Amino acid sequence: MLYHVRMDVHVPRDMDPAEFDKLRVAEKARAEALQREGKWRHLWRIAGAYANYSVFDVADHDELHAILGTLPLFPFMDIAVTPLARHPSAIAT
Amino acid sequence: MLYHVRMDVHVPRDMDPAEFDKLRVAEKARAEALQREGKWRHLWRIAGAYANYSVFDVADHDELHAILGTLPLFPFMDIAVTPLARHPSAIAT
Amino acid sequence: MLYHVRMDVHVPRDMDPAEFDKLRVAEKARAEALQREGKWRHLWRIAGAYANYSVFDVADHDELHAILGTLPLFPFMDIAVTPLARHPSAIAT
Amino acid sequence: MLYHVRMDVHVPRDMDPAEFDKLRVAEKARAEALQREGKWRHLWRIAGAYANYSVFDVADHDELHAILGTLPLFPFMDIAVTPLARHPSAIAT
Amino acid sequence: MLYHVRMDVHVPRDMDPAEFDKLRVAEKARAEALQREGKWRHLWRIAGAYANYSVFDVADHDELHAILGTLPLFPFMDIAVTPLARHPSAIAT
Amino acid sequence: MLYHVRMDVHVPRDMDPAEFDKLRVAEKARAEALQREGKWRHLWRIAGAYANYSVFDVADHDELHAILGTLPLFPFMDIAVTPLARHPSAIAT
Amino acid sequence: MLYHVRMDVHVPRDMDPAEFDKLRVAEKARAEALQREGKWRHLWRIAGAYANYSVFDVADHDELHAILGTLPLFPFMDIAVTPLARHPSAIAT
Amino acid sequence: MLYHVRMDVHVPRDMDPAEFDKLRVAEKARAEALQREGKWRHLWRIAGAYANYSVFDVADHDELHAILGTLPLFPFMDIAVTPLARHPSAIAT
Amino acid sequence: MLYHVRMDVHVPRDMDPAEFDKLRVAEKARAEALQREGKWRHLWRIAGAYANYSVFDVADHDELHAILGTLPLFPFMDIAVTPLARHPSAIAT
Amino acid sequence: MLYHVRMDVHVPRDMDPAEFDKLRVAEKARAEALQREGKWRHLWRIAGAYANYSVFDVADHDELHAILGTLPLFPFMDIAVTPLARHPSAIAT
Repeated sequence: MLYHVRMDVHVPRDMDPAEFDKLRVAEKARAEALQREGKWRHLWRIAGAYANYSVFDVADHDELHAILGTLPLFPFMDIAVTPLARHPSAIAT
Repeated sequence: MLYHVRMDVHVPRDMDPAEFDKLRVAEKARAEALQREGKWRHLWRIAGAYANYSVFDVADHDELHAILGTLPLFPFMDIAVTPLARHPSAIAT
Repeated sequence: MLYHVRMDVHVPRDMDPAEFDKLRVAEKARAEALQREGKWRHLWRIAGAYANYSVFDVADHDELHAILGTLPLFPFMDIAVTPLARHPSAIAT
Repeated sequence: MLYHVRMDVHVPRDMDPAEFDKLRVAEKARAEALQREGKWRHLWRIAGAYANYSVFDVADHDELHAILGTLPLFPFMDIAVTPLARHPSAIAT
Repeated sequence: MLYHVRMDVHVPRDMDPAEFDKLRVAEKARAEALQREGKWRHLWRIAGAYANYSVFDVADHDELHAILGTLPLFPFMDIAVTPLARHPSAIAT
Repeated sequence: MLYHVRMDVHVPRDMDPAEFDKLRVAEKARAEALQREGKWRHLWRIAGAYANYSVFDVADHDELHAILGTLPLFPFMDIAVTPLARHPSAIAT
Repeated sequence: MLYHVRMDVHVPRDMDPAEFDKLRVAEKARAEALQREGKWRHLWRIAGAYANYSVFDVADHDELHAILGTLPLFPFMDIAVTPLARHPSAIAT
Repeated sequence: MLYHVRMDVHVPRDMDPAEFDKLRVAEKARAEALQREGKWRHLWRIAGAYANYSVFDVADHDELHAILGTLPLFPFMDIAVTPLARHPSAIAT
Repeated sequence: MLYHVRMDVHVPRDMDPAEFDKLRVAEKARAEALQREGKWRHLWRIAGAYANYSVFDVADHDELHAILGTLPLFPFMDIAVTPLARHPSAIAT
Repeated sequence: MLYHVRMDVHVPRDMDPAEFDKLRVAEKARAEALQREGKWRHLWRIAGAYANYSVFDVADHDELHAILGTLPLFPFMDIAVTPLARHPSAIAT
C-alpha cells in the first residue's frame, strides 16, 4: 500500500556538527537501502527547504510506522502521512 | 523538471449533474493522455477526499501553468504547486 | 487495518428538507450495515456539532476510499483520514 | 462518559535519555493499568508521529483532568479533549 | 457538569427577515427557559460580533448535545465545546 | 465591566521546581484574593490542559491589564482577552 | 475607554448596486456623525482592501456593541475588537 | 515607493462568461497601461493559480489604494499589500 | 504617510533582568522622543499582552524600517506593518 | 526560469555577535555576487522585518536549491518558494 509522506528536518543549532554528520550519513544509507528494497518508492527534495516529499510502499500502517521510527533523523523530523488510494484516471504503469 | 501538485476539487452543488459528468469524462481523458505523454508522471487519490497528489514532469513553469489551466475541472480546483529538486539520497531509477 | 476518520457534515441551506431527510435515513441504514459487517468499528457524535469521530477497520486504502465515497451524505462532508498503528502500550482486547 | 483525546509527545532534546526511558516505562505501566480498569478504552498510535488518539471512559471532567494530569509524560504533552455524545446511528455493542 | 460553549451565528443573507425574526424570538424564549432551569448558567455577548460565550451545567455530553441541537438558531451556528474541570484555585461560591 | 480571559501556562522545563512551586502558591493566593474581592468572577480549568477560562469584573481596560500583569505566573502565560457585552437574552441574576 | 476595531466589509455579489450604494451613503453619514461626537476617534483605510482600522472611545463594552451593531454595513462586516490600555511609554497628548 | 502585492482572483461561478471576458479584457488593458506608465513595475503569474505577485511603484499609500480599487477585477480579488524597503545588500540597478 | 504597526515583545526567560531593564528604559526614552518628534503618532497597550498597536507617520518605507530596526527591543519583537490610506469617511481633524 | 522566494531570518539569541556579523558580511558578499551574475534578480527588504522578498532567475529547481542552500545565513532562514509563470498581461521589458 502507498503512503504519501512529508518530512521536515529541524537541526538543533547546539548539536555537535560531527554527531549530526554521522546521523546524516546513516540516514542516507538507510534511505538508499529502503529504496533498493522497494519500500521507499519516491524521494524528492522540496526546493529551498530541508524537507522532502516521499512515497512509501509497505504492507500496512504498522510497517510504515516502524520504518519511519527507525530513521536516524526521526527525532528531528515533523512527519505528515497521507494514505494514497488508486486514482480512477491513473493509467497502469 | 518535476513539480509536486495537490489538487482539491470542489463540485458546485447547484451544477447540472450531466454537465459535471461530461467534465469528469473529459478530465479523465485529458489526464490519461498527459500520463501517456509522460508529463503527468504520478496521480494518486487522497483517501477519503475528492483530491489528488500528482507529480508533473514538464519543461518549465509556463508549461506547467498551461497544462493545469486547460484541465476541464480547473475552474473547480484549488491547486498547490511545489518545485521538486533532486534529493541527494535518491537512488537512480 | 484501522483508520481514524473525522466527518463534518455541511447541510446546504437551500436543500429540500424532504430530500435531505431521505439522505439521512439512507446514511443511517448504511452506517448500521457497515457497523454490523465490522468495517465501521466506532462511531461517536462530537458534542455540539454535526460531526463524528469514527474508526474503520478495512482491508486497505482503496476499500476505505470506496466505502466513504458511497456514503449518502459524502457530497456534504469534509473528511480527514489518519492511519492508526498499533500502540506499544495498548493491551490486547 | 466518553472523551476523545489526542496526545502529542514532545521529547526535550537535552533530556537525559535514561531519565526519559524511566518516564516511558512508567507511562506504559500507567496506561496499561488504566486500560485494565476500563478508564482508557482505546489507545492508537498515529502512524509516523509520537502521538496517539485515545478514548477515555470516566465519571466526569474532573476525573478526566486528574487522570491526564498524573500521566508520567503529561509535562511533555499537548492534549486536545473532545466530549463524545451517543451517535444516533451507532448500534449497541 | 460544566461546559464552556462559544456560538457564532451566521445569518444567511437571502433568508426572509420575518422568518429569521421568528427564529430569534423563539431562540430568546428557549435561552431564557434554559437559564431559569439552571442549565444555561451564563450567557454573554462577544462585543462586536453576533456570537456568545456561554457556560452550560448539564448531566452529561448527551444532554448538552441534545440541548444545543434543539436551539432554534442551531442550523446557523458554529459551536465549540470545551469541558470545564474544577480549578484548584477557585473558591467555593 | 466583564472580560472573558483565556490563560495558557507554559512551564519552562529548565526551571527550578522549588522556584516554580513558590510561584504557584503565590498565584493561588493572588487568585483567591481577587475572587474574594469580586474582581475575578469565574475561574475554570480547561480539562486536559494547564489553562483556564476566566471572567473578570473590573472598572476598565487599565485595571484589567494591571491585574493580569501582576499575576505571579504572568511571565509564563499566553493571554487572550475578549470584552463581554450584555446579551439581550440573558436573564437578570 | 478605547477599543481597537478592525472591520472587513464583504459585499454580496448579487446585491442590488443601488441598494448597496444607499447603505454606503448611510454608513458614511453615520461614521462622520460618530466621529464628530468623539466616539469614533480614528478611521483609516487598509491599503488595497475594503477594510479599516478604527479606534473607538466609548463608555463601555455595551456602548461599543450597540454602536457597531447599528452601522448600516454591519451585516456585511467581520469585526475584531481589542481593548486598549494606557501604554506606560505613551506621552500625554 | 515600492509595494509588493499579491492578488488572488475568484471568479463567481454564476457570472455571465461574456461579462467576465469583458472585465478580463479591460483588466489586461489597464494592467498594460499601468506598466507602461511605470507604476506597475512587475507582474508575474503564480504557477497553477489564478493569482499574481506584483510590484507597484507609486507616490504613496493613497495612490496605491486608488489604483488597486479601480482595477476592473478588483471586486473579485483578495489583495495583500507589503511595503518594500531598500535592502542593504541590493546592488544599484 | 501613516503605518499601522503591531509589536509583540518576547522576553527571553534566561536574559539577565538588569540587562533587560536597561533595554526597557532605553526603549521608553526612544519611544517618547519619537512621539515628541511626531513620528510615532499613537501608542496603545493591548490589554493583557506585552504588545502594542501603534501608528507611525514617516516619510516612506525606508524611514519606517530604519526607525523600527533601531528600537532597543527590536531583536525581541514580532512586528506587523500595514500601510494606511485615507478613508473616504474620515473627517478632517 | 523565475522563482519568487521569501526568506525570514531568525537570529539565535545566544549566538556570538561577532560570529553572526561575519555571517552577515559573507551573506552580503554572496548576495551581491549572485545579483551581478543575474541569478538573484530582485532583493527587497520587507519593512519592519528581518526578511526579504526576492526573485531568482536560474536554470532549474536544482540550481535554485543549490544556491539557497549555500547562503551563509541559510541555517537561520525559513524559505518559501513559488514558481513564477509568464503573466499574459505582462508587457515585454
